[in-house]
Amino acid sequence: MPEYFSGKQLKNMNMSQLDALCEDLRQKILSTVLKNGGHLASNLGAVELTVALHYVFNLPDDKIIFDVGHQCYSHKLLSGRGDSFNTLRKKGGISGFPKREESPYDCYNTGHAGTSVSAALGIAKARDIENKDFNVIAVIGDGSFNNGLVYEAFNSLRLLKTNILVVLNDNGMSISPTVGSMHEYLELLSENSEHISKKAKHAGIFERFGFKYDGVYDGNNLPQLINKLTEIKERLKKESVILHIITKKGKGYEFCEENPEATHGISISSSDYISTEYSTVFGETLCSLAEKDSKIVAVCAAMSSNLGLADFFEKYPERAVDVGICEEHATILCASIATEGLKPYYAVYSTFLQRSYDEIVIDICSQNLPVTLCIDRAGVSGADGETHQGVFDLSFLSMIPNLSIAVPKDVNEFRSMLEFSATFDKPLAIRYPREGTHSFKLQSEIILGKWEMLSENENASASILACGERAVTAALEASQLLEKENIKVNVINSRFVKPLDTKMLKTLTQNLIITVEDNVLSGGFGSLINTHFSSDNKKIKNFAFPDKFIPHGSVTELMKEFGITGEAIAGYILNAIR
Amino acid sequence: MPEYFSGKQLKNMNMSQLDALCEDLRQKILSTVLKNGGHLASNLGAVELTVALHYVFNLPDDKIIFDVGHQCYSHKLLSGRGDSFNTLRKKGGISGFPKREESPYDCYNTGHAGTSVSAALGIAKARDIENKDFNVIAVIGDGSFNNGLVYEAFNSLRLLKTNILVVLNDNGMSISPTVGSMHEYLELLSENSEHISKKAKHAGIFERFGFKYDGVYDGNNLPQLINKLTEIKERLKKESVILHIITKKGKGYEFCEENPEATHGISISSSDYISTEYSTVFGETLCSLAEKDSKIVAVCAAMSSNLGLADFFEKYPERAVDVGICEEHATILCASIATEGLKPYYAVYSTFLQRSYDEIVIDICSQNLPVTLCIDRAGVSGADGETHQGVFDLSFLSMIPNLSIAVPKDVNEFRSMLEFSATFDKPLAIRYPREGTHSFKLQSEIILGKWEMLSENENASASILACGERAVTAALEASQLLEKENIKVNVINSRFVKPLDTKMLKTLTQNLIITVEDNVLSGGFGSLINTHFSSDNKKIKNFAFPDKFIPHGSVTELMKEFGITGEAIAGYILNAIR
Repeated sequence: MPEYFSGKQLKNMNMSQLDALCEDLRQKILSTVLKNGGHLASNLGAVELTVALHYVFNLPDDKIIFDVGHQCYSHKLLSGRGDSFNTLRKKGGISGFPKREESPYDCYNTGHAGTSVSAALGIAKARDIENKDFNVIAVIGDGSFNNGLVYEAFNSLRLLKTNILVVLNDNGMSISPTVGSMHEYLELLSENSEHISKKAKHAGIFERFGFKYDGVYDGNNLPQLINKLTEIKERLKKESVILHIITKKGKGYEFCEENPEATHGISISSSDYISTEYSTVFGETLCSLAEKDSKIVAVCAAMSSNLGLADFFEKYPERAVDVGICEEHATILCASIATEGLKPYYAVYSTFLQRSYDEIVIDICSQNLPVTLCIDRAGVSGADGETHQGVFDLSFLSMIPNLSIAVPKDVNEFRSMLEFSATFDKPLAIRYPREGTHSFKLQSEIILGKWEMLSENENASASILACGERAVTAALEASQLLEKENIKVNVINSRFVKPLDTKMLKTLTQNLIITVEDNVLSGGFGSLINTHFSSDNKKIKNFAFPDKFIPHGSVTELMKEFGITGEAIAGYILNAIR
Repeated sequence: MPEYFSGKQLKNMNMSQLDALCEDLRQKILSTVLKNGGHLASNLGAVELTVALHYVFNLPDDKIIFDVGHQCYSHKLLSGRGDSFNTLRKKGGISGFPKREESPYDCYNTGHAGTSVSAALGIAKARDIENKDFNVIAVIGDGSFNNGLVYEAFNSLRLLKTNILVVLNDNGMSISPTVGSMHEYLELLSENSEHISKKAKHAGIFERFGFKYDGVYDGNNLPQLINKLTEIKERLKKESVILHIITKKGKGYEFCEENPEATHGISISSSDYISTEYSTVFGETLCSLAEKDSKIVAVCAAMSSNLGLADFFEKYPERAVDVGICEEHATILCASIATEGLKPYYAVYSTFLQRSYDEIVIDICSQNLPVTLCIDRAGVSGADGETHQGVFDLSFLSMIPNLSIAVPKDVNEFRSMLEFSATFDKPLAIRYPREGTHSFKLQSEIILGKWEMLSENENASASILACGERAVTAALEASQLLEKENIKVNVINSRFVKPLDTKMLKTLTQNLIITVEDNVLSGGFGSLINTHFSSDNKKIKNFAFPDKFIPHGSVTELMKEFGITGEAIAGYILNAIR
């Protein structure tokens, strides 16, 4: 495939050229992902669909919204980004997700599940208001299809009086296999395609919402896809269509086809050293707590394996709930299970916690229920970029009444915090990054709101308050660098962001206070310290992420770019006290 | 009805006694709501349902979750709260919503739409885990039934392998009439009840999710309800049931039946003086902006009238979208409409903004799209209590990159801010309370991030930075009180919380800085000022709501209780400078 390839050339290709193109796309995706990391199996499964869409529709005049975006690589390759595709997910390179900033072929940025149908309806509505003429297509996986947003969008189709095409790319997976009754219904439609009468199909759920249902049950068959899409393109002038296609996740590579969960996303070992994953420690500890305490329940919204819960689901199936990509519902399940005296743990990535913000405030915290939020991938999470960074959680959580927030300095302390949580009878959040890279010697008992003095010096020039493993690591590095200059500092493991250790704060006699966190400054840990000292004559310097969306890059690169490093902290202190 | 009436006595009543009880309940509800304010028409419609549930089921062993809670008054009266019912919605009195703290008959607190089915499933799941034996019932209105949460809950019913009863109380209203295809389907089921074959009904959407569908299409007929519920109670041992009942909102009082939207909620003039409602100014201004600018679109998630948009919907139906109680979908519609170059305004109550937090962060702000969030009922909103106070928005919004936040000091400034927004090409939030009580003389031009000096004194002892009408009012009152003591202060209208007016902040030479806002301190306006001055030797005092959920009470009572008044500010300053 020539690097300059643009989708427009597709229109002149014959079927064997198109087949060869699919093969080229697969190879390019595979070789790049093996080098750069990224989403593999989902992209391999959607190659034919993407080629067919580019062949039949007129991009970028017609608009495609890729739900989540785990299937957009072929689209990127077909829209003039072949020559930069080798920079995929690299700092400064192209994103692994659709990005309006990158190309006019990307009309709507995605990353979180279930937004595509709403976005397609909004774009189509705007088109109608302005009397424009183009087609709008949402491509959504069966995993995202479980999300309540899709129902909200479907429910408003007739009301909005507009026409869109929804391609339901059904590969049976939501990273983990897709669960729920909607997916059972989809299986019924496809598997019994010959036994179910045409009429019964057309009178199904989708018809109720104003969509005409259609299917291509071999969704990796390019000629079938092209024929069906060509027919549908005409119909879109007068109706909305849902096209249900069954694709093979990982298509084209036996190993991927047979291991779709393991090859959904490929991580490439980077400069970020991982000793133990926090998720592993989470799963192990929760299992051992559950052995002793029959009241412990684990809840997640898809991705149980990535969250470390595979063993728990195996060992305690009756106390393990995965509701699919339904963060709001999962959160209320936790709150309501807690009202009955059980002890639910909700495991979730930091960025997806935003989806159930209202339920955290109202259902969990205003009822003051003993739910533990186990927040994985906190801080910058790396190569997935803007939509996946966990740099907001300390801010949007710390202002919620009744909620305590713990942030472990290493996996050992994380284990102790989980043990602490089992005896704690109020809402608690524990937030942690993916990688555990250090383990520190000191391990003092976990007491609510009690910090830990890691390095105390009688004549300290400053106190560094650090929150979380990355921050504590940077603070200790700074301390060592300063030591070489004969400057002493205190380093404090501020392991509770809420409540703050006001007792320890009172003992800090130094005029210079440094805060370190891998969260945005606004509303985060540093901000709480600033408020604590707002009437004191302290000079406070906050090391935190700035008020901007953080693009993709490795964790190390991003921490460095935004100055949250031992070197930067030491440099600042040196300058401030001289 | 004797004040000591408890639901258990129902079991021994005959049908004519039960009819009389319904009449008593209606009168008690009407007389109390006319005195105290509250939700009227929705409660009147659900009287027979509630009596039937109390008659058939064994409360509080069996559990009922009332979605939102706008229909729980009869339940409160039947569960030992008759003698305190005259304190409804009064400070220190009983809440207008279900509250676990109030009674063991209230098993789950509600207030925001769509949570009841999830909560019922969680409680039923906990029951199953603990091998207990009781029934769980969700009572949900057709308005809430549009919310995506309900789909998420339905989708997981089979997966959770538990049995619940969902009573779908269909009165055709979501405050405003219910919209959407689901509601059209419900109408079909009830209106054509004789024409649709039994089989077709049973093979409907609900069956797909594992519910048996049943209906009582005269849902105010007590004997029918009792018979059906008695039958269903047995069936719950082996299956989940959705019972669709059609009730008459406002039932029993002609005026309410004919005006269900106007009598949904009754406001009683209190000590809170209202000169103009902000929502009125919003609607008028948006209409006049839309007349000049064909790109303006208005979006809301139900309650268009309460939000001030009735005229806009009448005048510009093609540019007005109400998707029902679907805040997430509404937010993405705004973002996607904006990608096409139009100018959407999303009108929403502060507390319900929490529902689409992720979409505000990811869809609107990370794409940096020119959507204007018009946030009504900000600050404490009064008698609805914990679940309806708008005291968190400044905190959870101010940490979102790319978002600017404006807070008007009066309705005139609000009008200017809306005019400013029409020319602003980035995400903008404008937050305002319900009541406009003052109008101040000074009205300077709205420039992004530029504050207004309302009262400047050469020898000022302190600068008071106030944000929003209530805060500015308190600050000016403080200034006048201090004037009597010959103490001068500056009063600044900090009308942009983001960006801050750093230029004006630099000019403040006073050592004492006061911030005033009707938001929680953590992460709010005061917190931003504390961070701004974190390296300065200023003494800062923040007047804001504390880190707790604010119960119901009048606005004036709550502002006073939490010390956000002119008197409290003046008292503090007097004390600090003497």
